[in-house]
Amino acid sequence: MSEAATAQAARAAIGDSEFDRDTAVTLREPGVYDIDLSAGWTIISAVNGGYLLAVLGRALSDALPHSDPFTVSAHYLTASQPGPAVVRTDVVRTGRTLSTGQASLFQYDDEGREVERIRVLASYGDLDALPDDVRTTAAPPVIPPMEHCFGPEDGPAPVEGSSAITERLMLKLDPATLGWALGAPSGKGEMRSWFGLADGRDPDPLSLLLAVDALPPTAFELGISGWVPTVELTVHVRCRPAPGPLRVSITTRNLAGGFLEEDAEVWDSADRLVAQSRQLARVRLS
Amino acid sequence: MSEAATAQAARAAIGDSEFDRDTAVTLREPGVYDIDLSAGWTIISAVNGGYLLAVLGRALSDALPHSDPFTVSAHYLTASQPGPAVVRTDVVRTGRTLSTGQASLFQYDDEGREVERIRVLASYGDLDALPDDVRTTAAPPVIPPMEHCFGPEDGPAPVEGSSAITERLMLKLDPATLGWALGAPSGKGEMRSWFGLADGRDPDPLSLLLAVDALPPTAFELGISGWVPTVELTVHVRCRPAPGPLRVSITTRNLAGGFLEEDAEVWDSADRLVAQSRQLARVRLS
Repeated sequence: MSEAATAQAARAAIGDSEFDRDTAVTLREPGVYDIDLSAGWTIISAVNGGYLLAVLGRALSDALPHSDPFTVSAHYLTASQPGPAVVRTDVVRTGRTLSTGQASLFQYDDEGREVERIRVLASYGDLDALPDDVRTTAAPPVIPPMEHCFGPEDGPAPVEGSSAITERLMLKLDPATLGWALGAPSGKGEMRSWFGLADGRDPDPLSLLLAVDALPPTAFELGISGWVPTVELTVHVRCRPAPGPLRVSITTRNLAGGFLEEDAEVWDSADRLVAQSRQLARVRLS
Repeated sequence: MSEAATAQAARAAIGDSEFDRDTAVTLREPGVYDIDLSAGWTIISAVNGGYLLAVLGRALSDALPHSDPFTVSAHYLTASQPGPAVVRTDVVRTGRTLSTGQASLFQYDDEGREVERIRVLASYGDLDALPDDVRTTAAPPVIPPMEHCFGPEDGPAPVEGSSAITERLMLKLDPATLGWALGAPSGKGEMRSWFGLADGRDPDPLSLLLAVDALPPTAFELGISGWVPTVELTVHVRCRPAPGPLRVSITTRNLAGGFLEEDAEVWDSADRLVAQSRQLARVRLS
């Protein structure tokens, strides 16, 4: 085999990858799904919010007549832990081109009672049924070639907050947004990176829900370290992503009153804007 | 009285204005509110989505222990009509600084059955309890002075889609984003305007929910006329607005596959970024 063919053969396929296994939900009864939240997607001890969104998105993809998330709004209530969880879904409305559903992720307290972690409202459709036209001229973010970017494995600069999830991801950060890792944050609310799954699985609409919340927080470049918990996160999936690495660009315009927004754009290898997201997060101002 | 004092005296107060009367909800039983949706906030025959969001926001403000909307995510299910409606709320979680609630607006079909119009998830807090600091340097939109901008009353160019709501609003559009009204859309996904309530009522967090969805759609400047129905709209209220007119800037980066996003920023007279919103809307491509 050629080197390229070997690399190709080693790549995990959509449906048979770490991400697919760790987001797999088991139908308990109509609309109710069990899952064991994997410790493989944690940052320090918290389960990553994008991974959790993908779990909820997968349950809704099964519960609704349409399978692709078009817009998903999540309100984060309490911090999730690795371990057993249940997703309860509710079909709000089904239409010809769009269906709307609601889903909640619960875990269990010491007495076995359900504690709600996240609640989402989402509208689903069929991305392949959309016309192919693009009428606007938004341009992809300018990120240096991957070999000039840096990931957690490229130390010696330790990537603050790194944890299990870094082994599941292919992150190559733009050096221009890496000042924080060297003790010299730029002061600009920007974070840019190449993004993929470590086992080479190509992106799909579900993994885009992970991609929008997988980079280090823009707060780091604003000189703030520590935990930036998400209050609310809404994702729009605009196009089925082409195979190959994604580019993710996150910007913050307004850090004020102890909150900030993070706007993410995700671009695919075919230069299509495949997802947009915005989250409201809390910051601890020092 | 001086001329300024006369003008001041003629202004409606927060709590005693068209907007307050038309968003007033009546408690039917705990968590359930009746309202008669006013025909005064329609565009052609459809009730404006921002007005509806303010109605839902007001019910949640009563139902939750915190009174200010921080982030509200709405999924629009079916088109609302002027007339009787009911808002059913549910407290999802109450915390010290944030509370999360859910609300649905229903109207009635010919047999009197409830039909769901909109469902929202929202997190509320206390804007006055936030620290006053602003760490970022986002700048307000550049809009010419109000006397160089144009509203529906400044004809002869007819403002397409104008209707009852235009009598309730003070809209003065930036001429640079008014090409569509003269048959020469700019091709840029931009819309900018001064914004207020026609009776002079000052802005508050609730009227910001209206402000983010009250301008003509950016689609007009992209050369698309007609109805651009909202699928999902999320608003972040970041600061209690200062008295005086607001500036609203809306941008669209991606019109593709029959959908577009509209990002709105709302700035107050003190140059604070007081609200941000993003919506996903459908467009009928011709």
